[in-house]
Amino acid sequence: MSHPWRRRAAVGAVVLAAAAAYADPLPSWNDGPTRAAIVGFVERVTLAGGADFVPPDERIAVFDNDGCLWSEQPMYFQLAFAIDRVKALAPQHPEWKTTQPFQAVLEGDTRTIAASGEHGILELVMASHAGMTTDEFAAIVRDWLATARHPRFDRPYTEIVFQPMLELLAYLRENGFQTWIVSGGGQDFLRVFAQEAYGVPPQQVVGSSIETEYQLRDGVPVLVRLAKLDFLDDKAGKPVGIHRFIGRRPIAAFGNSDGDLQMLQWTTLAAGPRFGLLVHHTDAGREWAYDRKSSIGRLDAALDEAAVRGWTVVDMKRDWKIVYPFEREATSVPGSY
Amino acid sequence: MSHPWRRRAAVGAVVLAAAAAYADPLPSWNDGPTRAAIVGFVERVTLAGGADFVPPDERIAVFDNDGCLWSEQPMYFQLAFAIDRVKALAPQHPEWKTTQPFQAVLEGDTRTIAASGEHGILELVMASHAGMTTDEFAAIVRDWLATARHPRFDRPYTEIVFQPMLELLAYLRENGFQTWIVSGGGQDFLRVFAQEAYGVPPQQVVGSSIETEYQLRDGVPVLVRLAKLDFLDDKAGKPVGIHRFIGRRPIAAFGNSDGDLQMLQWTTLAAGPRFGLLVHHTDAGREWAYDRKSSIGRLDAALDEAAVRGWTVVDMKRDWKIVYPFEREATSVPGSY
Repeated sequence: MSHPWRRRAAVGAVVLAAAAAYADPLPSWNDGPTRAAIVGFVERVTLAGGADFVPPDERIAVFDNDGCLWSEQPMYFQLAFAIDRVKALAPQHPEWKTTQPFQAVLEGDTRTIAASGEHGILELVMASHAGMTTDEFAAIVRDWLATARHPRFDRPYTEIVFQPMLELLAYLRENGFQTWIVSGGGQDFLRVFAQEAYGVPPQQVVGSSIETEYQLRDGVPVLVRLAKLDFLDDKAGKPVGIHRFIGRRPIAAFGNSDGDLQMLQWTTLAAGPRFGLLVHHTDAGREWAYDRKSSIGRLDAALDEAAVRGWTVVDMKRDWKIVYPFEREATSVPGSY
Repeated sequence: MSHPWRRRAAVGAVVLAAAAAYADPLPSWNDGPTRAAIVGFVERVTLAGGADFVPPDERIAVFDNDGCLWSEQPMYFQLAFAIDRVKALAPQHPEWKTTQPFQAVLEGDTRTIAASGEHGILELVMASHAGMTTDEFAAIVRDWLATARHPRFDRPYTEIVFQPMLELLAYLRENGFQTWIVSGGGQDFLRVFAQEAYGVPPQQVVGSSIETEYQLRDGVPVLVRLAKLDFLDDKAGKPVGIHRFIGRRPIAAFGNSDGDLQMLQWTTLAAGPRFGLLVHHTDAGREWAYDRKSSIGRLDAALDEAAVRGWTVVDMKRDWKIVYPFEREATSVPGSY
């Protein structure tokens, strides 16, 4: 026998489920060619008996993270984490006061940090991401995400994610896709928040990594993070990472920069229905506007190739009703909000 | 409107489904402490509200392959593949006639192959597994599996799999586990047959790997396999591989040799309900009997540690009603066969 309140809850759940079935799955996407291309592709590959039907097992979709699922300005969020870590560790490293790029970090000299280039940034990452166990590192990242604030929006970094892309991830999963992140960012950094922020579990996160070493410490097994690059999951490394981790070819790829070019090639230049999409940052008001000349997330060669290959290009300003989830509070977008 | 035969089929399906719900999920396992340990663990972690309940997301089970899911005698099956490939490629490599370990392969001198050790076997693997695209390699493995026969049983290698372990894989999946292979064998070799043979999709196969390189060949993207070791997924490498690919700690691990020792430590020496199991090859009649002194699949340190850690040890001769699926034809085991 069920209590009346339980019956009411059950009825409520049925009503909500029925409403959800008819609700727009992409309420933050404006009508237009971009939205039509996405929906058209999903409907074609899921139409049982259709010429372009793809079995659920093969519905693999890969997403870049920085600039594709969350913002990457005014600097990669993981670099902000590395900088905060270097500051926190500085008392144990008096030599950093006179060693670049650490000195620049401690003095807030972002120009020198940027000028230190890939090598300098790698040094910051190694100093801040290695030397602890994997469990300790995850706890450090979790603490940072809980306390750090994005400088422009004064909100946690995990709120600076793109609402339309969250809807797209969910829409694909509802249609039997397995959604993966394939990022140049750190794999173990991403795994701390990917499930909660994006609904992507740790085992579907591919990223750059440093080596780990197995040790038994007083009978307790640990994996220690070493200051040694294992894999750089960027540019031509992305197809390599996709093959290594997934072992099958995606049918849809989503990126925003030249770092995603080879991933889109690998995904789309093959037989069968294929979908490639680039997020073009065109909205200086709500987010940022940058492309061919940006040092962060440069979109140049891939933008040219998109026209040739028929990849879909999101014009953020035109295609997105809102950019961030927190805008829902301030807008009157109808539908399933 | 449905035709009568369609109604009959539907009724039949319902009856079968009902029967399956009550059928023994482990019909090839004899009653006894091993079977009881497996079932007891699964029931504890799936009992909603129980003290040892584990949410489905965290029900990760990892399996070694050679000697755990299929046999590994008289030599690792993948080594048989490498030897067949070296023979097939020999006409293009006249120098192999006088170069070890290739000469030994061409002369059928298994003693010299074995004596060439890890380095020699690695040379054979590199010569036979590199220099082609990933798609070409998968086709080569597929062709070999379709034609090669195991020397003792005169059957395809994919039939030399352990029926009780197939049932265990399915039983775990029915109980919400995600089943992974974590093997010292080649990841891309395993992925060709793991789905069909074990129900494990490519993205849940972790193994040893060589590097690949992305190339555009006449506008067609390919990944070329290089003769350079990327990752050796054995011994202390197994926890490293588990962390890299899965990013969360398994709660159950299944192995059979000292190569699985660290995987079982990493899985079981942590808080919460944990399960470790070793398959002990004790059946010279139906399979093989070997352990502490075998050069293939040596089980020595891990067998000692099993007693200390409380890991379950399968006595193949005692615990398994049948070893291989093809024995079902010749036996009268009751139940759901």
